[in-house]
Amino acid sequence: MRTRVPSRDLLPRVLRGEVPAVARLLSRVEAADPECRETLGEVYARAGGAHVVGITGVPGSGKSTLVSALARRLRQAGHKVGIIAVDPSSPFSGGSIMGDRIRMQDLANDEGIYIRSMATRGALGGMARATLDSVDVLDVAGFHHVLVETVGVGQDEVEIVNASHTTVVVSAPGLGDEIQAIKAGILEIADVHVVSKADRPDASRTVADLRQMLALGMVGQEKDRTRWHPPVVATSALTGQGLDELLAALEERRRLFAGSEEGRRRLRRIAEYRMLKTAEEILRRRFHEGSAGRTSELLERLLQRTISPHAAGEQLLARISGEG
Amino acid sequence: MRTRVPSRDLLPRVLRGEVPAVARLLSRVEAADPECRETLGEVYARAGGAHVVGITGVPGSGKSTLVSALARRLRQAGHKVGIIAVDPSSPFSGGSIMGDRIRMQDLANDEGIYIRSMATRGALGGMARATLDSVDVLDVAGFHHVLVETVGVGQDEVEIVNASHTTVVVSAPGLGDEIQAIKAGILEIADVHVVSKADRPDASRTVADLRQMLALGMVGQEKDRTRWHPPVVATSALTGQGLDELLAALEERRRLFAGSEEGRRRLRRIAEYRMLKTAEEILRRRFHEGSAGRTSELLERLLQRTISPHAAGEQLLARISGEG
Repeated sequence: MRTRVPSRDLLPRVLRGEVPAVARLLSRVEAADPECRETLGEVYARAGGAHVVGITGVPGSGKSTLVSALARRLRQAGHKVGIIAVDPSSPFSGGSIMGDRIRMQDLANDEGIYIRSMATRGALGGMARATLDSVDVLDVAGFHHVLVETVGVGQDEVEIVNASHTTVVVSAPGLGDEIQAIKAGILEIADVHVVSKADRPDASRTVADLRQMLALGMVGQEKDRTRWHPPVVATSALTGQGLDELLAALEERRRLFAGSEEGRRRLRRIAEYRMLKTAEEILRRRFHEGSAGRTSELLERLLQRTISPHAAGEQLLARISGEG
Repeated sequence: MRTRVPSRDLLPRVLRGEVPAVARLLSRVEAADPECRETLGEVYARAGGAHVVGITGVPGSGKSTLVSALARRLRQAGHKVGIIAVDPSSPFSGGSIMGDRIRMQDLANDEGIYIRSMATRGALGGMARATLDSVDVLDVAGFHHVLVETVGVGQDEVEIVNASHTTVVVSAPGLGDEIQAIKAGILEIADVHVVSKADRPDASRTVADLRQMLALGMVGQEKDRTRWHPPVVATSALTGQGLDELLAALEERRRLFAGSEEGRRRLRRIAEYRMLKTAEEILRRRFHEGSAGRTSELLERLLQRTISPHAAGEQLLARISGEG
């Protein structure tokens, strides 16, 4: 058995951008290993340099292809790119589409690109905490851009992608009605709209629809936004169309965080979300660790219907939070 | 303006099964109105009679059609049926598929069927709590079966549907690779597998695949299950095939809860989940209500990176949980 290197000894290597050390620390982040907690505190203290781009879209929207194309384009521009895929349908996290897997292989051979997939279940629902900690690790390891990809369905998944500096929502022309209906719920969070598959003739219709929705104020009214107006960018991974325009939009977003009130509001919202998600995960962990003891009496009363779920939840919170 | 009836005065009408009173109480449940909390406690004390069936499947799996067909079949068998759709793609919650909307209209004209759609976002993430409270309201209003429908993508959505007595996972023949990949994650939670669109020639292949996965122990090994072996039922809303078989499986499940150890384990797991989700929602509410005050100092330190997210989360939990 390999000797276990303490996380604090991994840190200097992570800061030098050594990929094996990054990979080992990320495994501990994902497993919610308490041993790495202090190190993550030091990571957090040093983080904040990377531009974090959340990318989402419904299944079939072409978001994984966009992530690949964008990563390659960012590399050409001289940036190091980290990718975190929190998406069961993503080729990065074990999806089944051969073409995308091959594209991923391409990326994986480039030392300036690091790809990590996150399990979407388990870890006591600590997906948000694990993703945000992982972003920090890639950040301090010198990745200029960190792309966080999730499928745009599911409350947690949408929240996670929105806990980024810039949220990109990918729409594709010609998806089925049921799929499009799901999408409606995520248009609001877009800082940048991408219409993928722009080489298709029906893409211009999708672009026009989105622009009209924006013009009519049907989307894009998120309260954080005062200066920023979400652009609609049509891209094609096939022809390369739109990728420069997307890069320019991301660069403009980065400037927004250099000192504007809107940027500060966004950072505050992300920090609030992070603090709350961490508190929730601590609550869950203590509940599962302690459920044999003090909480089992509450559970019995709940099963016998002699206490209401709300009262049980309140008492659980009170009992569990005093612990160290 | 209509005078606001106190929730406690709605309760006797709810217990008599009066639909307008049910609808008003459910609106308060969804809005997390504190005024109805005490009444919900009384509702919970009386609940437990209904068989709660969670139904999920990926977009395009035909789960909404199955819900319609199942509801109609249960009505023919003399049962009252409540439906809660927590699914942005569901016709019950505002999806866009005209055919399903018409089917829904059919159902809506039957007084023995009550349909309610839940918003999947907002309410501070209290979707699980709101769904479970809503199930109780329908339960005490005399609905023998409550069907809870969610899209089978997203951690929260899958958890909610699994917080039922019987979880039905709907698979359809011939869906695309990307969609099927998402599905893989939800097969494990199925107490009953339904293969929809059994009138299609490729359905038998999907049935055979599922049976093989079950036989090989690739799915169905959930630790709660000792006596129950998840059946695979092929249904067609078109021909009515398989609906009787599905009804028989649900009836058998109901018997499982009449006294078996396996049934008790399931009820305990649901109660644990409910207690924890309620505690989480209380935590979130207090955080948002109090964020101007005691928690803002924590937030400032987090933004300045002088405290780690984990330490901030711990302190948040400690500060917030002492409140009444």
